[in-house]
Amino acid sequence: MNVARPHRSLRLPLDLPLDCGQTLARPTIAFETLGTLAPDGGNAILIFHALTGDQYVAVPHPLTGKPGWWHRMVGEGRPIDPARHFILCANVIGGCMGSEGPASPHPATGRPFALDFPVITIADMVRAQVALLDALGIGRLLAVIGGSMGGMQALQFAADHPDRARAVIAIATAARHSAQNIAFHEVGRQAIMADPDWRGGRFLEAGTVPRAGLAVARMAAHITYLSEAGLTARFGRRLQDRSALSFGFDADFQVESYLRHQGMSFVERFDANSYLYITRAMDYFDLAERHGGVLAKAFRGTSARFALVSFDSDWLYPTSESKRIVQALVAAGAHASFVELQSPHGHDSFLLDVPELNRLVDGFLRAVEAGS
Amino acid sequence: MNVARPHRSLRLPLDLPLDCGQTLARPTIAFETLGTLAPDGGNAILIFHALTGDQYVAVPHPLTGKPGWWHRMVGEGRPIDPARHFILCANVIGGCMGSEGPASPHPATGRPFALDFPVITIADMVRAQVALLDALGIGRLLAVIGGSMGGMQALQFAADHPDRARAVIAIATAARHSAQNIAFHEVGRQAIMADPDWRGGRFLEAGTVPRAGLAVARMAAHITYLSEAGLTARFGRRLQDRSALSFGFDADFQVESYLRHQGMSFVERFDANSYLYITRAMDYFDLAERHGGVLAKAFRGTSARFALVSFDSDWLYPTSESKRIVQALVAAGAHASFVELQSPHGHDSFLLDVPELNRLVDGFLRAVEAGS
Repeated sequence: MNVARPHRSLRLPLDLPLDCGQTLARPTIAFETLGTLAPDGGNAILIFHALTGDQYVAVPHPLTGKPGWWHRMVGEGRPIDPARHFILCANVIGGCMGSEGPASPHPATGRPFALDFPVITIADMVRAQVALLDALGIGRLLAVIGGSMGGMQALQFAADHPDRARAVIAIATAARHSAQNIAFHEVGRQAIMADPDWRGGRFLEAGTVPRAGLAVARMAAHITYLSEAGLTARFGRRLQDRSALSFGFDADFQVESYLRHQGMSFVERFDANSYLYITRAMDYFDLAERHGGVLAKAFRGTSARFALVSFDSDWLYPTSESKRIVQALVAAGAHASFVELQSPHGHDSFLLDVPELNRLVDGFLRAVEAGS
Repeated sequence: MNVARPHRSLRLPLDLPLDCGQTLARPTIAFETLGTLAPDGGNAILIFHALTGDQYVAVPHPLTGKPGWWHRMVGEGRPIDPARHFILCANVIGGCMGSEGPASPHPATGRPFALDFPVITIADMVRAQVALLDALGIGRLLAVIGGSMGGMQALQFAADHPDRARAVIAIATAARHSAQNIAFHEVGRQAIMADPDWRGGRFLEAGTVPRAGLAVARMAAHITYLSEAGLTARFGRRLQDRSALSFGFDADFQVESYLRHQGMSFVERFDANSYLYITRAMDYFDLAERHGGVLAKAFRGTSARFALVSFDSDWLYPTSESKRIVQALVAAGAHASFVELQSPHGHDSFLLDVPELNRLVDGFLRAVEAGS
């Protein structure tokens, strides 16, 4: 299943200014497209990916061979359908699937940036993708859509480009990272940086991989993606390949075995420094901050129609955060709808088989398409 | 403030059989007492400590100099009062404050047990403390009490010794570890075992300390002790000693700085192997397991009065777990009362200033004392 080809990418024609004050010199952006752009350009949908996602939404992942991360939402006969839509998804800057990130060569030295890569923000990620749209000649979009960190980018896009998308769909997300969100990310970063194989970030040159640290970071984060009830239903206290407790430190319980597998397989496909940079960008995210703490001001003057979706079992970005966004949108005079869906799967629900989510996105997109 | 004296301890007169099938040869149990045992022995209260607690409930900690971990509950004029009660608290076996544990010398080699220490259970911890009671000549207790893992021991004590305590108080606890509980502990264990300074458990002999791994384990666990609302109220997105984001990986946010401090200070007072063993004991805990999965059967024939307390913001051992225990107690015909207290502090509430908790424990103990 391995697709042995380089990531499709484009070097931006202009330098990219960043929130930190630095500039990325004509960064490379990797992206995938599906479908055909309509002559009037009006059928384009930009999908933003989540923390550990990438541009491979609906085609097999080149490293794992697994189906694209949003194949349930994107594809033939799906709500986002290449038969009807032109679908674009780009790897975020700071990422590790072809877009400029800490593993990219520093233009001055040719060595990997590592921690010399500038700390980026969600707004920087969006700025890079808008530059990509410009470079590709794509004007006003039918929609932008994303879940989790993808939803943050969708909201940031709406705030920074109030007329560039007719619809904004933000799923299982928040307009800011909470203290608890930051805390979990900090645990992950400390786990990575504590790994001697991280080598102060210069592990690529050293030929090492901070496997243990990155795996622990992934394990801690993964718990936050699932619900307590979901974990109980799926694993409970069931034992792994044994009929009795081992009285040892092997993975006695299925949930331990599952988590260890999640940690180890993640290491095979993700760069530890990208994990640091992207979690940092999320922690820095607070859409209201530049607007005196008033979220509604971020959305003033937007012409987009918004759909917000949360899941009742998502404790990472709970329903209360989506409601806060909807209230701000309403206060800003925007056209906003909101649904809390029931799902036992916690935050990860947006990636899983939740038919209600598909019906909702499908109906919303068709309504926007039918509008003027 | 440092109390430079050895832990008070007693070597048990008999070997201690363990659930794993092994035996500890006359293990040492470290303990502290307060108050005076009444001539009829009827004023004794056994306090069980939590995962990272110890026997220093109400006197300063010998390593940190901080007040005892339950000084709000135990002391002159407190619900558990040395003027009225004989108060006993022992370090659990597997611990690192003087009781037999992985840092103790192996009788055959004189070297620290490390991972040759047998994997223990909550029932083993209780068995050791009952042996201590026997050795001290203490028969029927007025009460056993504990929060978190201390509550697990209180419930286990009630199940194994249905007539040995007149009252059982179990706070912020559960009768079994959930998949999510196990998952968080597994992250911590993996963080410790990933630290090269852990040396396969033999770090004491190597003269190293797996600081980074143990700190990450503590950080991850610490998040589960607090509530999302509590973290938001206490830290929110406030910055630490700076007026703007640093665009780096230092602790920009107060919550990061706080967590790092929690991790680093924990390393100074706790043994990494003890952390492995005690978390494992908690993960193995399922009081109903030996009773065909029927929790009520664990409590059949008990003569004790039970008080269960949960906190509404505790997501580690939520109210639903306490309710499950109360239902089992009622089904077993036991005398059980239950209160869910309001507190913003999450699981840690049982250690903090919650006046309602003190009133409740005080009233309950006085009612039991006034009874026959």
